[in-house]
Amino acid sequence: MSEEIEKQVAELEKQLKKLQKNQAKDQISIIAFSGDLDKMLAAMIIATGARAMDTEVKMFFTFWATAMLRDKKKCGTGKDFMSKMFGFMLPKGRNKAILSKMHMAGMGTAMLKRLMKKKNVASLDQLYEVAGIMGVKIMVCEMSMDLMGFKREEMIEYPDLDFCGVATFLANAKESAVQLFI
Amino acid sequence: MSEEIEKQVAELEKQLKKLQKNQAKDQISIIAFSGDLDKMLAAMIIATGARAMDTEVKMFFTFWATAMLRDKKKCGTGKDFMSKMFGFMLPKGRNKAILSKMHMAGMGTAMLKRLMKKKNVASLDQLYEVAGIMGVKIMVCEMSMDLMGFKREEMIEYPDLDFCGVATFLANAKESAVQLFI
Amino acid sequence: MSEEIEKQVAELEKQLKKLQKNQAKDQISIIAFSGDLDKMLAAMIIATGARAMDTEVKMFFTFWATAMLRDKKKCGTGKDFMSKMFGFMLPKGRNKAILSKMHMAGMGTAMLKRLMKKKNVASLDQLYEVAGIMGVKIMVCEMSMDLMGFKREEMIEYPDLDFCGVATFLANAKESAVQLFI
Repeated sequence: MSEEIEKQVAELEKQLKKLQKNQAKDQISIIAFSGDLDKMLAAMIIATGARAMDTEVKMFFTFWATAMLRDKKKCGTGKDFMSKMFGFMLPKGRNKAILSKMHMAGMGTAMLKRLMKKKNVASLDQLYEVAGIMGVKIMVCEMSMDLMGFKREEMIEYPDLDFCGVATFLANAKESAVQLFI
Repeated sequence: MSEEIEKQVAELEKQLKKLQKNQAKDQISIIAFSGDLDKMLAAMIIATGARAMDTEVKMFFTFWATAMLRDKKKCGTGKDFMSKMFGFMLPKGRNKAILSKMHMAGMGTAMLKRLMKKKNVASLDQLYEVAGIMGVKIMVCEMSMDLMGFKREEMIEYPDLDFCGVATFLANAKESAVQLFI
Repeated sequence: MSEEIEKQVAELEKQLKKLQKNQAKDQISIIAFSGDLDKMLAAMIIATGARAMDTEVKMFFTFWATAMLRDKKKCGTGKDFMSKMFGFMLPKGRNKAILSKMHMAGMGTAMLKRLMKKKNVASLDQLYEVAGIMGVKIMVCEMSMDLMGFKREEMIEYPDLDFCGVATFLANAKESAVQLFI
């Protein structure tokens, strides 16, 4: 009898380990897709807020959001004509981002920025700095970089910035307790 | 031998309890970010649909979506000039929401509203009422309220409405089986 | 003593089975809401990328995204006037989709499509074909179909396409490791 129980217990242990391995980690995966000021603010506030709770944060910057990561003082070389044109039309860095609503010739964006200052809400610049210090990991979509003609040397300095494909990101997202497409 | 097994079983029990505690609840967390009529409709249909399946629903209203919660008959007092301006430019309540596409001088929105009536699809007003009765919890982002200059007394009457920060919401989201940013 | 242990082990087995049953599957649920070219591209790239990792993918097409599934060569019959009008104003099929940003009289969309061709990024047409071959399941929101006045016979040929309500989708989403609202 005791031998049988031993077997059962061993089997339970095995199953339990498997469950533990597959359980979602205390980690948030954010797909930053939009280049709108408001959505980028939301993404960065969620990211830094989660780090303050000691939750791991991985952000995957793709499509319009990749333009947010360009350093306005840096330039990419060896671009073809189309890439140059496309890059020229996209906002260069996060300070050029505008709201998704209330365009009104830029007045909405200007008002919000003034309100944020007045109410002591962190700006995008400050949020990126805080995110870097707090250990928010930024992963940049290689396909978007290639498509939009951005070069790695154009990107901002950031403590934990990597370039990867959608597969790497999905592997991370599947392990996370929370996933958001912003 | 039997003593060793007892220890193993006790350890397994402990590990199992921990797994159970960390397992995602039958709960949906929705970040309602957008103030577009179409996205708000989607969020409310998902929320009420989930309640009909007895799933817990927590909605975190942030940024443009907070304007949806303003009662058109109420007024906030003691606002500064900028907040008054900003509040004036934002839609006052859910009936002022428009589609994210097909603006055409409001024609798209009017057509959709007529189509919804004709096809017996619940309006936003009805969806909010149903959500309240069914027990959808609404959490309003304090930072957005402050930023947009909205006062608590301006908000609609709703059975289960709270004000909180992003940390409270994230703690809820991490426990949920499903999270959506809408 | 041994009898007590047996009971404990049986109880543990029961609890473990329950945990295993409730654990999220290796499955991604995507709510395709937007009819923008860029967001649809992102959704399809994530979907096919996940299938390449052998993850189950279920896409729920709702609202504007349903218009993407219309076959431009097919016609629905028996529509009332409003549905005909609404259907006429919506893009007919995925090739009519435009970017959510950079409209510039269609120039942004045309440029992106040329860039995609040049950089060997799959077009929406190719992505749908690949998705079908790889086994991405498409579920179409019945309420959206009804609201927009689309008929089933208007939809594209696709290997695994079903029509369902929000409840069916939510049941799937709750089982999934990842959920995205795009």
